[in-house]
Amino acid sequence: MNVTMDSGVFAAADLGLLSPVRAGGAVEAAVGDVAWLQAMLDAEAALARAQARLGTVPTEAARTITGLARAELLDVRAIALAARETANPVVALVSAFTALVARRDASAAEYVHRGSTSQDVFDTGAMLVARRALLLVLDELDACAGALGRLAAEHRDTPLAGRTLALQAVPTTFGLKAAGWRHLVLDARARLARVVEHGLPVALGGAAGTLAGYLEYAAVDARMSDVEGYVRELVEAFADETGLAVPGLPWHALRTPVADLGAALGFAAGALGKFAVDVQLLARTETGEAAEPTPAGRGVSSAMPHKANPVLATLIRSAALQVPHLAAGLTQALVSEDERSAGAWHAEWQPLREALRLVGGAARCAVELAEGLRPDPRRMRANLELTDGALVTERLTAHLAGALGKATARAVLTEAATRARESGRPLVSVLSADERITAAGFTAERLAHLLDPAAYTGAAAALVDRSLAR
Amino acid sequence: MNVTMDSGVFAAADLGLLSPVRAGGAVEAAVGDVAWLQAMLDAEAALARAQARLGTVPTEAARTITGLARAELLDVRAIALAARETANPVVALVSAFTALVARRDASAAEYVHRGSTSQDVFDTGAMLVARRALLLVLDELDACAGALGRLAAEHRDTPLAGRTLALQAVPTTFGLKAAGWRHLVLDARARLARVVEHGLPVALGGAAGTLAGYLEYAAVDARMSDVEGYVRELVEAFADETGLAVPGLPWHALRTPVADLGAALGFAAGALGKFAVDVQLLARTETGEAAEPTPAGRGVSSAMPHKANPVLATLIRSAALQVPHLAAGLTQALVSEDERSAGAWHAEWQPLREALRLVGGAARCAVELAEGLRPDPRRMRANLELTDGALVTERLTAHLAGALGKATARAVLTEAATRARESGRPLVSVLSADERITAAGFTAERLAHLLDPAAYTGAAAALVDRSLAR
Amino acid sequence: MNVTMDSGVFAAADLGLLSPVRAGGAVEAAVGDVAWLQAMLDAEAALARAQARLGTVPTEAARTITGLARAELLDVRAIALAARETANPVVALVSAFTALVARRDASAAEYVHRGSTSQDVFDTGAMLVARRALLLVLDELDACAGALGRLAAEHRDTPLAGRTLALQAVPTTFGLKAAGWRHLVLDARARLARVVEHGLPVALGGAAGTLAGYLEYAAVDARMSDVEGYVRELVEAFADETGLAVPGLPWHALRTPVADLGAALGFAAGALGKFAVDVQLLARTETGEAAEPTPAGRGVSSAMPHKANPVLATLIRSAALQVPHLAAGLTQALVSEDERSAGAWHAEWQPLREALRLVGGAARCAVELAEGLRPDPRRMRANLELTDGALVTERLTAHLAGALGKATARAVLTEAATRARESGRPLVSVLSADERITAAGFTAERLAHLLDPAAYTGAAAALVDRSLAR
Amino acid sequence: MNVTMDSGVFAAADLGLLSPVRAGGAVEAAVGDVAWLQAMLDAEAALARAQARLGTVPTEAARTITGLARAELLDVRAIALAARETANPVVALVSAFTALVARRDASAAEYVHRGSTSQDVFDTGAMLVARRALLLVLDELDACAGALGRLAAEHRDTPLAGRTLALQAVPTTFGLKAAGWRHLVLDARARLARVVEHGLPVALGGAAGTLAGYLEYAAVDARMSDVEGYVRELVEAFADETGLAVPGLPWHALRTPVADLGAALGFAAGALGKFAVDVQLLARTETGEAAEPTPAGRGVSSAMPHKANPVLATLIRSAALQVPHLAAGLTQALVSEDERSAGAWHAEWQPLREALRLVGGAARCAVELAEGLRPDPRRMRANLELTDGALVTERLTAHLAGALGKATARAVLTEAATRARESGRPLVSVLSADERITAAGFTAERLAHLLDPAAYTGAAAALVDRSLAR
Repeated sequence: MNVTMDSGVFAAADLGLLSPVRAGGAVEAAVGDVAWLQAMLDAEAALARAQARLGTVPTEAARTITGLARAELLDVRAIALAARETANPVVALVSAFTALVARRDASAAEYVHRGSTSQDVFDTGAMLVARRALLLVLDELDACAGALGRLAAEHRDTPLAGRTLALQAVPTTFGLKAAGWRHLVLDARARLARVVEHGLPVALGGAAGTLAGYLEYAAVDARMSDVEGYVRELVEAFADETGLAVPGLPWHALRTPVADLGAALGFAAGALGKFAVDVQLLARTETGEAAEPTPAGRGVSSAMPHKANPVLATLIRSAALQVPHLAAGLTQALVSEDERSAGAWHAEWQPLREALRLVGGAARCAVELAEGLRPDPRRMRANLELTDGALVTERLTAHLAGALGKATARAVLTEAATRARESGRPLVSVLSADERITAAGFTAERLAHLLDPAAYTGAAAALVDRSLAR
Repeated sequence: MNVTMDSGVFAAADLGLLSPVRAGGAVEAAVGDVAWLQAMLDAEAALARAQARLGTVPTEAARTITGLARAELLDVRAIALAARETANPVVALVSAFTALVARRDASAAEYVHRGSTSQDVFDTGAMLVARRALLLVLDELDACAGALGRLAAEHRDTPLAGRTLALQAVPTTFGLKAAGWRHLVLDARARLARVVEHGLPVALGGAAGTLAGYLEYAAVDARMSDVEGYVRELVEAFADETGLAVPGLPWHALRTPVADLGAALGFAAGALGKFAVDVQLLARTETGEAAEPTPAGRGVSSAMPHKANPVLATLIRSAALQVPHLAAGLTQALVSEDERSAGAWHAEWQPLREALRLVGGAARCAVELAEGLRPDPRRMRANLELTDGALVTERLTAHLAGALGKATARAVLTEAATRARESGRPLVSVLSADERITAAGFTAERLAHLLDPAAYTGAAAALVDRSLAR
Repeated sequence: MNVTMDSGVFAAADLGLLSPVRAGGAVEAAVGDVAWLQAMLDAEAALARAQARLGTVPTEAARTITGLARAELLDVRAIALAARETANPVVALVSAFTALVARRDASAAEYVHRGSTSQDVFDTGAMLVARRALLLVLDELDACAGALGRLAAEHRDTPLAGRTLALQAVPTTFGLKAAGWRHLVLDARARLARVVEHGLPVALGGAAGTLAGYLEYAAVDARMSDVEGYVRELVEAFADETGLAVPGLPWHALRTPVADLGAALGFAAGALGKFAVDVQLLARTETGEAAEPTPAGRGVSSAMPHKANPVLATLIRSAALQVPHLAAGLTQALVSEDERSAGAWHAEWQPLREALRLVGGAARCAVELAEGLRPDPRRMRANLELTDGALVTERLTAHLAGALGKATARAVLTEAATRARESGRPLVSVLSADERITAAGFTAERLAHLLDPAAYTGAAAALVDRSLAR
Repeated sequence: MNVTMDSGVFAAADLGLLSPVRAGGAVEAAVGDVAWLQAMLDAEAALARAQARLGTVPTEAARTITGLARAELLDVRAIALAARETANPVVALVSAFTALVARRDASAAEYVHRGSTSQDVFDTGAMLVARRALLLVLDELDACAGALGRLAAEHRDTPLAGRTLALQAVPTTFGLKAAGWRHLVLDARARLARVVEHGLPVALGGAAGTLAGYLEYAAVDARMSDVEGYVRELVEAFADETGLAVPGLPWHALRTPVADLGAALGFAAGALGKFAVDVQLLARTETGEAAEPTPAGRGVSSAMPHKANPVLATLIRSAALQVPHLAAGLTQALVSEDERSAGAWHAEWQPLREALRLVGGAARCAVELAEGLRPDPRRMRANLELTDGALVTERLTAHLAGALGKATARAVLTEAATRARESGRPLVSVLSADERITAAGFTAERLAHLLDPAAYTGAAAALVDRSLAR
C-alpha cells in the first residue's frame, strides 16, 4: 500500500538515513510517528471502553470510538505541526479525532477524551509503544543469548589470550568470553523484562493528577458518587483494556516509568556494546581471531575492495555510544516541577523513542552477529604463542613461590621475561639457565609444560558450565 | 585524634569546600579515600580468611593479615601517588601492605594477595564502600519517606492550586503533593535496596577472569585438585566473609554492578530533585505556600539580611543536576573491552564515589527538609482565589456539557473566562449573565458553589490514602 | 508537489510528532534526510568539478554529474536501508548515483566518486547541512536579539524584584533582565558564527587520510606528478566549489568540526533555555509579570479552557534540556580510534542532526517569544511591595553601617525584618521604633524613602545602556 | 611544612586515591580546596584594592585586608562545613575573614566584602583558579605538541597500515598519525587559550546583578554620585587587580564563562583521548607497533610479571571518558533561573574543578607519553605484509579502471582478493593468472611493484610537512 505525502513534508522526514543501526528493523516501525499516533488512539479507545465498563460512557459510543481509532484516518503531519501551538500533539489529535467520530456519530463524539487530559493520553500511548517495542527487543535478546550460549558451549575449551590493559595477560577460553557476552545480554534482558512486567503503567490523572475531570463527568453523566471506588475501578479497567500496569499514583510529574525505561535501555545498549567492541578487537587484521558473517554486499568499502568491515559491531557500537546520553536526559526528567512540567516532560519524548529504536536496532544486529560470528581457533592458538610463554609467567610464579618466596619469584621471572624479550632467546631457555630456578627443581621439560598457554585456562571451563545453567 | 599531613598533600586535598550538599555527612566519610583504602584492605583480609577456610592459606597467616588490615597503618597519599605508575592503587597498596605484614611475620606476608589481581581487590573494596554508603542512604530515605508520609496525612485535605505548565490548572491538595514526593522517595529506596540486596558481588577473577592464579597457588600449596568445587567454595567463602553477593561470573569486564549502581543513584538524585524544585516553587516570595526550616544561621545571605534562602532544596537540586551525568558515565563503563579495560574501568572510580556522596548528601538534606517543612495553608487558600474561579472551569465544562455539548461548553467557558479576565468582572457574574448558561438551569448560587476551588479536589484524598498504604 | 511512499516506509518515518519545538520550521527541512542526501550529492558534484578544474576529470563528465546530483532522482529510503550493509549510506548512494549517471552517460559514470571514500562524501555533506542550517539559525538569533534589545530599551527603567535562590532579593529592572537574555543570545550567535566562518571544512582524505586514491587516479588518468601541489589545489578547489573551509589535515579521525558544532549548539540551546525558564517564572499565576503572545489556538489546554500555557517557553526549554546530552556525545566523538573509527563516527550523525534541528526550532520559538512577550509593569510594581520593603534592607545596611558598623547594622535589620514579618507590622514602623536606628538620625520619612524598591535599582539602567551598545 | 588535621576530617578527604590521572600533578594542587579558598581571598583583597583605587575604601584598610588574605590563616574544613547552612562557602569565609581582619584592625574589617555578595567572590575566585590551572595546562599542551611534532618529523616517511573500521585499509605513515595527534592537541590548546585570553571575567554584580550595594556604600561612604562612571571604573579596577577580563554584564545568571570552560575542557580531554586510544591499539600485543616509556615501576601488574601496561594511555583515556559528562553539566548551567539560580550555580563547582584537574592530569600524562613513546618501524613494516598486498588493491583499482572500467576493476579485484585469501595463494599470483588483468598489460613484475604497501602512502609526507608548519 502506498501513502502520498506533500514533498515539503517529505523534506522534513527522518527515514533512517543517519541511523543505519535501526533502519528497516521491526522496532523502528513500532516506534515511528504513525505507531505513536496509533498508540495514543488506542489509549483514547481503551479509556472510552473502560468508562463504558463502569457505566459512565455509553457502550455504543465506546464501540464507535474504538472502531475509528485508526491512525490512517488522521493526518499525522498535520497533528505534528499543530502540536507546536499547544506544546503537545494530543490537543490536535483529540480535535481531529473528535471531528472524525462526530462525522460518524455526533453523540459518540461527546465521549471522546471524556474528563481526560493530554498527558494521560500521551503517556499511556508512550507506555504502549514502549511495551510493543520492548517485546520485540526481548525476543531479539533471547535469540542473541541463545546463539552466544551455543558459541560458549562449542568453544568451552578453546584457548585464546586473555587481554588486559590492551596486552595479552594470561590465557582464557573463547567459551568464557562468549559466556560473558551472554551474561550481559541476559542482564539486559532481565532489566528490560522487569520494566515490561511491572514498569509500564497507564496514565490516569486528569488535569492535575486528581482525576477530578473523570469524576465530575461520571457524577454528572451517571450519578457516580463513590469516589474512591470509581477511581480504583476506572484505573483497573483502563489497565485491563490496554494491557498496562496499574500505577501507584497518577504520574504526570512522578516520572519513574520513564526514568526506569531510560536506565534499562542505557544498560542494554552498553551490554551489547561490550560484545561489539570485543568482536572488533578480535577482528583486527593483526589479531584475526574472529570475523563477522559476510553475506553478499555486507561490509563492502567504497574505496577498498578487499575489506570486509565489521559492520554489525560498528552499528551496535554506534548505538552503545548514543543511548547512555539519552538515558541521562530521561533520568533528569524526574526533576519535573509542579503537577505537570513545562518542558521536562516534553524533553522526554524524542529521546525515549530514539533510545528504543537504537536498542532495538542494536539487538537485531547482535542476533545476526552472534549467530554468524566466525571464531578462528587456529589464529587464537597462534596468537597465544606470540609472547613465547610470557603470558603464563603468573603460573610459574605460583610454582616458584614455594621455593623462593613470592617476591623473589616475581623478581626472577620479571627479569627472565625481560632478558628473553631483549635477547630474542626462548623464555624456557633463559629460565633453564637460571640457577635459582633449576636449584628449585624445575627442569627444562617441566618448565616447558608449565609454559604451555593452553594448559593454563584456570576455571574457564567450569565457569562456562555454571554460567550456561543460568 | 589528629592526623599530620604534609602541606603539599593538604593543598591537593578535596575537603568538601565545593560540595556543601555532602560536606560533613556520614556518607562523605563512608566513601572518602581512607574508607576506600580500608575497604580494599578488608577485601584482602577477607580473601585470606576465605582461602584459609578452604585450607589453602594457613589460618594463622590469615589472622595476622586481618589484624594488620587497618588503613591508618598505611600512607593513603603515598599510595595515591604511586597509583599513577600502574594506573591503579592496588599495586602500591599490596606492596606496602605486604611489607607491613612482613615486618610482623614474614611467612604470613607470603599469603597477602595470594593468587589475586588488582581488580579483584579494588572492585570488592568498591562494593564494600557502596554497601556501607547505601545502608546509610536507605536509612535517610526511610526517615524522609516517614516525614513526607506524616505531611501527606496531615494535609490530606488541604487544598492548593495544582499547577501545570507553570500556571494554576485545577485544585489539588498539599497532601497529594507530599504523597507524590514520598512515592518517588520510596521508588528510589526500592531501586537502591535492590542493588544492596542483590547487586553488590565480590570480585574474584584473577588476572584475566579465569581464577587461574588462585587455583594454581591452591594446587601448589595444598594439592587442591577439584577445580570446579574449589572455585565455587572460594567465591562463596569470600562472599560470606565480606557480606557481599556471589557473582554469576567474574565481572572485570562485565560491569553490571557498576551500571546498576549508577542507574539507581541517578534515579535517587532525580527523585529527591523533584521534591526540591517543588519546594522552591512553593517557597517563591509571590507564592509563599511553604518555607524551609530555619535553624539559626540557615539560609543567611551575605548581602541581604532579610532573606531565608531555601538552602536545603538548593543543595538537593545541585546534586540532582550532577548525578545523572555521572550515571551516564557509569553506564558507558559497560563497554569495557577485552578481559579488563584500559581506561573504562579507571573512569568509573571517581564518578561512582561522587555519585554516592552526592546522593548521600541529598538524602540527608531531604530528611531535614521533609521534617522541617512549613506549609502555609492560608497562603494556599489565598492563591486559590487568584484566578477568581477560572481554575475550576473544567468542572463547569462537565456540568454544561450535558446541556450544550462538550465543545460548545468549552467555547462558552473560554469566552467567559477571557471576558472576565479582560473586564475585571467576577467570573460568576459574567457566567450568570450568559443566557446560554442560565437557560441550562445554572443559577448564580449554583455557579458560585461549582466555582469553589476547595470543593474540586477530585480523588486527591482517596489517592493519598491509597498511597500511604504503600 | 506530492511524493508517494510505501506505507511500510511511512510507518518508520519520523515526521516531527514527538518534537513540536522543531516541527514545521525551516531548519527541520534543512536537515531532513532528503536535505542530507542532497548535500552528499552536492559533495560528489563539487568533487567532480574540483577534479575537473585540475584537469583530472573531464569537464563534461563533471557537468553531467552535477546535473544529475538531485536527491529527488534517488530513493532515500532504499539508500537508508542499504546503509545497514556497509554501516554508512554513501556506498549505496554512490552505487545508485553511478547507475543514474551511467544511464545518461556511461563514460561520465566512471568519474563519479573518483578516488574518493565514503567518509569524504558524508562529512562534506554534513558540513554543508550544518552550514545551511546554521545560517538560518543565525538569522533567527539576530531577530531574537533585536526583539530583546527593544524590550530592554523600552523597559530600561521598569523596576521589578530581582530574585535569587527563588526569593525576592533586591530590585532590578526588566530592561536589565531582557538585556541579559540578549547578551546570552549574542554569545550563542558569536559561537555559532565562529563555527560557520572557520569551523566547517570539506573532508578530503581518501581511504585512510592520505589522499592516495585521488592521487593515484590523477596520476593514472592525467599523469599528475606534483603530489604536494595537487593535494593543495584539490582541497582548495573542493572548498571553493562547496563554500566550505580548507581543513588543516584530513579529519576522518580528527573530529574537531563535529565537537565544535556540538559545543556551540549546546551553548545555544542553554542560552535560549535561560530565556525560557525566566519567562516561565515570570508567567506563573502568582507572579504574572509577563505573558506569552497568544495568537488564536496557542497555549490551549485539552482540559482547562481558561489556561493560556507558556507554550513557546516550554518548547524552548524542551530543547535546552536535550541538546547538552547530544553535545556530550559529539564531544566524545573526538576519541575516534585509528584512521577511521568503527562506531564513534557513526554515533555522530543522528545526534548532530537532532542538535541542529532542536536549536533551530528553539531559536524560531525564541524569536516569536521575544517579539510577542507582554511584560506587565503593574504586576511587577505590585510584587515589589510584597515584602514591605524588606528587599531593600541591603540599602539600609549601607546607610546604618556608618553609624553602627556593618555587623551590627546587619543584625539590627535582620531582627527588624523578622519582627515585622512575624508581627505583621510594617517594616518602616518597626524600624522607626528602634532606638538604635532613630539615634543614628533615621527618621520615619527618610526610612520610607530608603525603603522604596523602585529607587534602588543600582546601575541597572547604565548596564542596559552599555549592554545594548554591543 | 606540616598541617595537622582532625582524623574525622581526614576521613572525609579526597586525596587522589581514585583518580591517579591527576594525583600529584601541579594542576591538582592548583585547584584543591586550599587553592580555591586562596583564590576567593584574592578576590576579596582585589575588590578592596579596587575600591581603594576609586576612593571608596581607605587605602590602609585595603592593605590590611590584602595582607591577611592568606588561606593558611583560615580553617578550610570549617568553612566547608558551614557552607551547608547557606549553600555556599562565601558567607562563612567572609565571617571568618572579617573576624581575622578585625583582630588586626577593627576599622579595616568594616571594609571586607564591602557592598559585595557571595557570588561575586566565589565566581571571581573560580575564574582565578581556572586561569591558574589553564596556564599550567597550556604549558603541558605545548610540550606535548612539541614532542609529537618531533615524532611526526622523524617518522614522516615511516609506513604503517592505515586502519579503518578496525581493519587494515591502505598504508599511511606514522608521521601522519603523529601529526594528527599534534593537530588535535593544538586545537585543544587554541580553544583553552581563547578562554584564558578572553573568557575569564571578574564577577561583579552585587546581590542581584545591579551593583546596587557597591554603589550605595560608595555613595554613603564617599559621596560617589556618577553611577555609570563608578561602575565602569570599579569593574575595570577589579579586573586589573585580578588579571581577569571585564565582563559584558554581571553574569550571576549568564553563565557563558562556565559553559565555555566546560566546552574547552571537554574538547581537550577528547583530543588527548584520541592520542591515548591510538597508542593502546598500536601497543596491543598482536600489533606491537609502539610502546609506552617504561621507567622503573611503570606499568607493573600485580599479577603478571611480564606485562608493561600502557599506563599513561590508560590514565588519559580515563579522563577522556569522564570530562564530556562533566562538560554537559556545565553547559546545562546556562539554564540558570532568575537573577541567581537556586541550584544550577551550585551544581557547577565540583564538576568544574574535576574537569580542570582531569584535563590537567591527562595533559601531564600526554607529555610524558609523547616524549617517551617508542614506535617500532620494523613491526609496522611486518604488519604491512600481513594482507599480502590486499591493502593496496585500491591502487590497483585505479590502474585497472582505465582498461576495465571502475566497476569491473573493483569486481575483479574483490574476487581476486577473496580467492587469494581463501586459497592461501599470494595475491600477485592470483592476479597474474587472471587474463582480464594480464590482457590489460599488467605483468607480474608491475603488479608486484604496485602491491608494495610502502610505495602507496599518498600525500602523507606532504601533509606532515604542511601540518608541522602550523
